[in-house]
Amino acid sequence: MKRKKSNNIKAKQAGPAMAPQTAKDDVEITALSLQRGKLSPAMEAYFAKCQEKLGFVPNVLQAYAFDNAKLEAFVGLYNDLMLAPSGLSKLEREMIAVAVSSVNRCYYCLVAHGAAVRALSGDPALGELMVMNYRAARLSKRQRAMLDFATKLTAEPWAIEDGDREALRKAGFTERDIWDIAAVAGFYNMSNRVASATDMRPNSVYHGQSRQRVIPS
Amino acid sequence: MKRKKSNNIKAKQAGPAMAPQTAKDDVEITALSLQRGKLSPAMEAYFAKCQEKLGFVPNVLQAYAFDNAKLEAFVGLYNDLMLAPSGLSKLEREMIAVAVSSVNRCYYCLVAHGAAVRALSGDPALGELMVMNYRAARLSKRQRAMLDFATKLTAEPWAIEDGDREALRKAGFTERDIWDIAAVAGFYNMSNRVASATDMRPNSVYHGQSRQRVIPS
Amino acid sequence: MKRKKSNNIKAKQAGPAMAPQTAKDDVEITALSLQRGKLSPAMEAYFAKCQEKLGFVPNVLQAYAFDNAKLEAFVGLYNDLMLAPSGLSKLEREMIAVAVSSVNRCYYCLVAHGAAVRALSGDPALGELMVMNYRAARLSKRQRAMLDFATKLTAEPWAIEDGDREALRKAGFTERDIWDIAAVAGFYNMSNRVASATDMRPNSVYHGQSRQRVIPS
Amino acid sequence: MKRKKSNNIKAKQAGPAMAPQTAKDDVEITALSLQRGKLSPAMEAYFAKCQEKLGFVPNVLQAYAFDNAKLEAFVGLYNDLMLAPSGLSKLEREMIAVAVSSVNRCYYCLVAHGAAVRALSGDPALGELMVMNYRAARLSKRQRAMLDFATKLTAEPWAIEDGDREALRKAGFTERDIWDIAAVAGFYNMSNRVASATDMRPNSVYHGQSRQRVIPS
Amino acid sequence: MKRKKSNNIKAKQAGPAMAPQTAKDDVEITALSLQRGKLSPAMEAYFAKCQEKLGFVPNVLQAYAFDNAKLEAFVGLYNDLMLAPSGLSKLEREMIAVAVSSVNRCYYCLVAHGAAVRALSGDPALGELMVMNYRAARLSKRQRAMLDFATKLTAEPWAIEDGDREALRKAGFTERDIWDIAAVAGFYNMSNRVASATDMRPNSVYHGQSRQRVIPS
Amino acid sequence: MKRKKSNNIKAKQAGPAMAPQTAKDDVEITALSLQRGKLSPAMEAYFAKCQEKLGFVPNVLQAYAFDNAKLEAFVGLYNDLMLAPSGLSKLEREMIAVAVSSVNRCYYCLVAHGAAVRALSGDPALGELMVMNYRAARLSKRQRAMLDFATKLTAEPWAIEDGDREALRKAGFTERDIWDIAAVAGFYNMSNRVASATDMRPNSVYHGQSRQRVIPS
Repeated sequence: MKRKKSNNIKAKQAGPAMAPQTAKDDVEITALSLQRGKLSPAMEAYFAKCQEKLGFVPNVLQAYAFDNAKLEAFVGLYNDLMLAPSGLSKLEREMIAVAVSSVNRCYYCLVAHGAAVRALSGDPALGELMVMNYRAARLSKRQRAMLDFATKLTAEPWAIEDGDREALRKAGFTERDIWDIAAVAGFYNMSNRVASATDMRPNSVYHGQSRQRVIPS
Repeated sequence: MKRKKSNNIKAKQAGPAMAPQTAKDDVEITALSLQRGKLSPAMEAYFAKCQEKLGFVPNVLQAYAFDNAKLEAFVGLYNDLMLAPSGLSKLEREMIAVAVSSVNRCYYCLVAHGAAVRALSGDPALGELMVMNYRAARLSKRQRAMLDFATKLTAEPWAIEDGDREALRKAGFTERDIWDIAAVAGFYNMSNRVASATDMRPNSVYHGQSRQRVIPS
Repeated sequence: MKRKKSNNIKAKQAGPAMAPQTAKDDVEITALSLQRGKLSPAMEAYFAKCQEKLGFVPNVLQAYAFDNAKLEAFVGLYNDLMLAPSGLSKLEREMIAVAVSSVNRCYYCLVAHGAAVRALSGDPALGELMVMNYRAARLSKRQRAMLDFATKLTAEPWAIEDGDREALRKAGFTERDIWDIAAVAGFYNMSNRVASATDMRPNSVYHGQSRQRVIPS
Repeated sequence: MKRKKSNNIKAKQAGPAMAPQTAKDDVEITALSLQRGKLSPAMEAYFAKCQEKLGFVPNVLQAYAFDNAKLEAFVGLYNDLMLAPSGLSKLEREMIAVAVSSVNRCYYCLVAHGAAVRALSGDPALGELMVMNYRAARLSKRQRAMLDFATKLTAEPWAIEDGDREALRKAGFTERDIWDIAAVAGFYNMSNRVASATDMRPNSVYHGQSRQRVIPS
Repeated sequence: MKRKKSNNIKAKQAGPAMAPQTAKDDVEITALSLQRGKLSPAMEAYFAKCQEKLGFVPNVLQAYAFDNAKLEAFVGLYNDLMLAPSGLSKLEREMIAVAVSSVNRCYYCLVAHGAAVRALSGDPALGELMVMNYRAARLSKRQRAMLDFATKLTAEPWAIEDGDREALRKAGFTERDIWDIAAVAGFYNMSNRVASATDMRPNSVYHGQSRQRVIPS
Repeated sequence: MKRKKSNNIKAKQAGPAMAPQTAKDDVEITALSLQRGKLSPAMEAYFAKCQEKLGFVPNVLQAYAFDNAKLEAFVGLYNDLMLAPSGLSKLEREMIAVAVSSVNRCYYCLVAHGAAVRALSGDPALGELMVMNYRAARLSKRQRAMLDFATKLTAEPWAIEDGDREALRKAGFTERDIWDIAAVAGFYNMSNRVASATDMRPNSVYHGQSRQRVIPS
């Protein structure tokens, strides 16, 4: 394993070790001093389910947990958008999440949803491409049209017009699909800003997730 | 009433009358063909309450009504952000809504929330200033700091850092208040994009609302 | 009149009344301390005519009145552009004024010329649309082409080329009309900057003008 | 004269000669087909004076000459701004003209007023610096403050506030001077756009003017 | 290994497998059809050394290999900048490379140099932060100043002035260091553009490199 | 020679003479204090050749001369790009240099390479057009396509896609030519930043070079 060894050598050359960037990310979740509030049984159960299924509670949920009502409202909207039945696959919704977050350069969402794109696609490079520049990805016309709309809507929402909606229809999207693209893109324009406003930190575990390609059988 | 008359004259000079811009705004609410879904009793009651209190159901709610789950999630988040107890007054939350929507040039939100600023402040010009350029308004230091943060968060979320949060603390805002400013600004960054993506039209009644100054007693 | 009453209630909730935004706008017209100069008889007569016809002297004229020569030069150019015969209707020239001022976010011009669009069109929402986002208006192809040219010329004048002029010709504009579109757009790019540089305040009366739709007979 | 010769050689290397860029600039002044109108005696005299003093009539005047009223209004404003007594020297007003035109990348104004800066300063490099990047020039604090204001006013007029005006006062400018800086900057924001909208070409003679430094005696 | 399994499941949900994004990246290195040229012995040796030390020849070198002279010139400059003695550590130079490439959204450089930051620092999250938003990283004042300069130089080079250089000196950088920061930032502004212009693809092996944290001993 | 005289008069009106902008440009070449290093014989010879052929050593070379290795690497790349055989003429490469430097507003490169465009073309106005706004030049389709690509690559490199390369092919460029356009544009994106980062000053002699049109024989 030559490469690993040479990395060790290089790491030593880098001088006195800095604390790793993730050192506090799982304990100081935002830059705001907000105490956890009392959660409803439903939210307690939701957190327990996250812990069981994912092995951790995503930091965005912990950040909202200072106020149970705000947490529930956020979770309600998130679950409808990202998990409810839709003409968009879950992967497509995560691709929108990352492409939008790339325009807004949101560290939290790029890390968390970049991991989701890697996991859902089984293709780590797809996650990197959504983070770095979706235009460099090899996409179907459908997915390209979807991301063109979502990122234009992010960068210059005032310029969206009939022609933009028509391009989605030509790419095969239904009226409900167009709504869903808009709603998911809109949602991450919200989340990106809540995260950036509070310096929200992603769970450190995301960084290493799904870095190996899953060969489809 | 000299002025009114001269307006009439000028209107005639304008040549063949165009259809008024609001002609279809109360019937063709978005550019998407989506049929109203079946509403839950809670949502039916909510719509009835809007009708009774406001005299109309805001078009954004009608737009979401093609899917009751989406409507409920949106209403849940909206009501928490705009109506729940907060260190920000309702007027301040509406001022954020309009200043953010001005950056994003969202017709729906500027009309609907511009009317809310006029109504809550009793000062029509304050509504116009939020729409046009909040920097030209005579604001308290607190409100200026609040809008500076909200609009920077809208235009370049990646550039928000500790100094920006610290400026809010110096202006008297608590940690919860900072969250609320971020959350309201974030919410309108979402709503602006859903509205622009779908060409959502504001109820025509908003245009004339609260145009006369309410003299505080 | 249920709505008016509820507005009063809301206004009370807003806490201690702020001074209305227009409190000083008719007396402290700019942020510069400039004494009114001696006006020529022609300018005295012009001011008197404004007072008689409009009920007030527009603040921009009062702002220029510190120097009669500058006032006369401004008035000379303004009157030629906005009132002289042209292939563009007066309403169209005012639409350009507001759409340009929207790009530049000029409070003075948006208020004053927004009122003019409402008055000349008899359609209050048209004025709002020019202020907020002209792309959301239902315009004829001619007027859309006109505003596309005027706002591109405002935002990126270096990028105007033959194709842009050709688009105007295809929309039915003559060579003189193209000049007039350019000249009016140019003029408001000047006025917007003089107003913003001096924090020029619009006469308070504009805010309430022409807010009711004039039904064309 | 080694250099000249080598230039000739290089010019040959460039392959088949293109028509010089200025080939038509003195005959096809704009991209619009507009016939010269009948000029008033005052304007006829003004053109004759230009011819006598400068050796040519600036193309911008010829472009406006399709309509005597428009020409007179333009000349009236131009002469007041650029030639009337002011706390700004003529050179300073020309420096503003070029720095503003650089932001707007206006070919006509950069050529014509770049020549004026060279002529009035006797320093050809000062003209180039105003065209290319005024921040690279060695300027007095006064002139730097003046150009910072003028270019900010050009690029983001909505962001000018009290602090910007105060910076001018601290640099020694009076209230009238601030007006004049705003008015000159505003004027070239207009002229740049009329020129760009019409593809106005500068008189070819400007290119070679005042290229040698005038040693002050 | 619960997580891995669930990823597999999710990958299946994603529907018919797309070809992995890296499928052709090691064989179709750019979008231009250029045949490999004859390499000099020095370049042959350099390629062999890459193969031995890294296990592959970086695609950027293969892309330049259509012309040996261009390859040598590129390699000469690259090696001086990134490997020669400098007051900047190799890690710091790679941090500049990635932060600059993030402004320019260059897929090739973000992948290749993001891997280098992970390897040299032993901290995978540091690589992600340079890609996503360096402002969210926990950096020393020195490194923050270095990246602020490099990214401003990238985004608005015309606005760099004495104050920017002075900030580097205050952060402890020497005159030579300032040159090196400028030269490295400049180099990636070149490389980013060559890569984007040709759709250069990064070697697929980079994606998985150095994803585990190296605990400093 | 009426004009020259009037210029003298105007120069006097300009008040106390400022030091000419170029006063120190040939002695204080950058804002960094870097001592000249020992040059290799090859570089000594190169400097001597510059002195003999041009009459001066370009300041960029003197700026790099604090470190012979960096100088050689720069010269190696420069000479390959600008002087080696290419499908692009030397004039075309210089046109790219200036158009790119115009986007980046780099004083050094605009002066030095603006002079080169004037010299190689024999058409002074062509140099000015590249500096000011290449869109205003009368170019062949080939050269227009070349500059459109180079300036888009400069301003938004992330947005270059297959369509942009295809446009070059349609304009007659080969695969190698596309590489060369990219490489030259990339190179000036580097040089512009090194020059702006160090406030590099152009040799004063450039300003007056090739200002007279060379009539092709």
